[in-house]
Amino acid sequence: MEGKEISQAVIRRMPRYYRHLGELLEEGVERISSNDLSRRMNVTASQIRQDLNNFGVFGHQGYGYNVNYLYEEIGKILGVNERHNIIVIGAGNLGLALANYVKFEKLGFVIIGLFDINPALKGMSVRGIPVYMLDELEAFCKKNRIDIAALTVPKQKAEAMAHRLVSNGIHAIWNFVHVDLEFSEEEVVVENVHLSDSLMQLSYNMIQKRQDAIRAEKKTE
Amino acid sequence: MEGKEISQAVIRRMPRYYRHLGELLEEGVERISSNDLSRRMNVTASQIRQDLNNFGVFGHQGYGYNVNYLYEEIGKILGVNERHNIIVIGAGNLGLALANYVKFEKLGFVIIGLFDINPALKGMSVRGIPVYMLDELEAFCKKNRIDIAALTVPKQKAEAMAHRLVSNGIHAIWNFVHVDLEFSEEEVVVENVHLSDSLMQLSYNMIQKRQDAIRAEKKTE
Repeated sequence: MEGKEISQAVIRRMPRYYRHLGELLEEGVERISSNDLSRRMNVTASQIRQDLNNFGVFGHQGYGYNVNYLYEEIGKILGVNERHNIIVIGAGNLGLALANYVKFEKLGFVIIGLFDINPALKGMSVRGIPVYMLDELEAFCKKNRIDIAALTVPKQKAEAMAHRLVSNGIHAIWNFVHVDLEFSEEEVVVENVHLSDSLMQLSYNMIQKRQDAIRAEKKTE
Repeated sequence: MEGKEISQAVIRRMPRYYRHLGELLEEGVERISSNDLSRRMNVTASQIRQDLNNFGVFGHQGYGYNVNYLYEEIGKILGVNERHNIIVIGAGNLGLALANYVKFEKLGFVIIGLFDINPALKGMSVRGIPVYMLDELEAFCKKNRIDIAALTVPKQKAEAMAHRLVSNGIHAIWNFVHVDLEFSEEEVVVENVHLSDSLMQLSYNMIQKRQDAIRAEKKTE
């Protein structure tokens, strides 16, 4: 697949396929047609075929998809079966919430440390995950392979912290801070979780729905 | 704008405009050309013009955009200046993290209650936000106008809880549970924050980057 750039829109949909296939496996379903998968996921069958074709052809005419095979293949594509070590920068509520998600671990994403500047947290641990002081970061990064850093620090500190992480050899940042980190794409991979943005999108759609309802009422009057 | 459906891709970008315009305001910038905004946001100027044209024309040839006006207008579009009451279902780490985000309040999204089934939490509060027991939900919904419910419950309970919320008159759900809620679009607006999906997308991009680096090395050998 060298040189074939797959769009982020397609990538964004893959975890959802992975999740639904996992649920099908749990339900004991061994194979599924693209039509049935389409109905289940509320996506068109042609979208499914197009999405999956990006990664090679998995379906067979008249047979459909082998659920287990497709699940495993998408898992490989997403790196789910590999072990990824994560550190969380910031042991506030959000950092603690991340550390408490057992689910990530099951997918191979293992949080091996939390870092904070609050001395009251020194020596504490969450689900067996130790909380370190931020000045221990450099030494920790030398001793451990770290794949991903989750960033949950105050906004004003995010940019400097991100660069500090990169200079410690971390090239993937899961950014929860409400700021766009500035990096060249070659340097580092950033995935943003901007909760306020998501809330505003919900707000927009909610307002639209209300206005639609008002308009519909007026028409029937 | 009746009947004009704006794509979710455009909507998804609006909070980011809003954020950057807010930062510009803080920096004392009064007007900005689409080229300068484009450079700052790392989006093409034509994308910016197209996006904003969906909501009416805000820019002026040779003048650019009035930062404050644009900020206010996008705020109105996103419903930021209105008050929205939120309840959080589930007072675990994630629920508490949401309750502790002061930022949401500044945008008009005010969390007025947390709900949980853990009796140990009864009578407690977070930043002055009371924690209620789930069996108080119905009475609370009758007494208070609630615009949005944030859902942070175990996966197996999500679907039933979502329907309970809807039957209590809540038509916007901010879903943090790793499951697709099944509603007709007319019934309820759902905005998903699927953290595992986001982590898998990061993982995919990280793996791609590593493979690119290996390929680049081989070529120079």
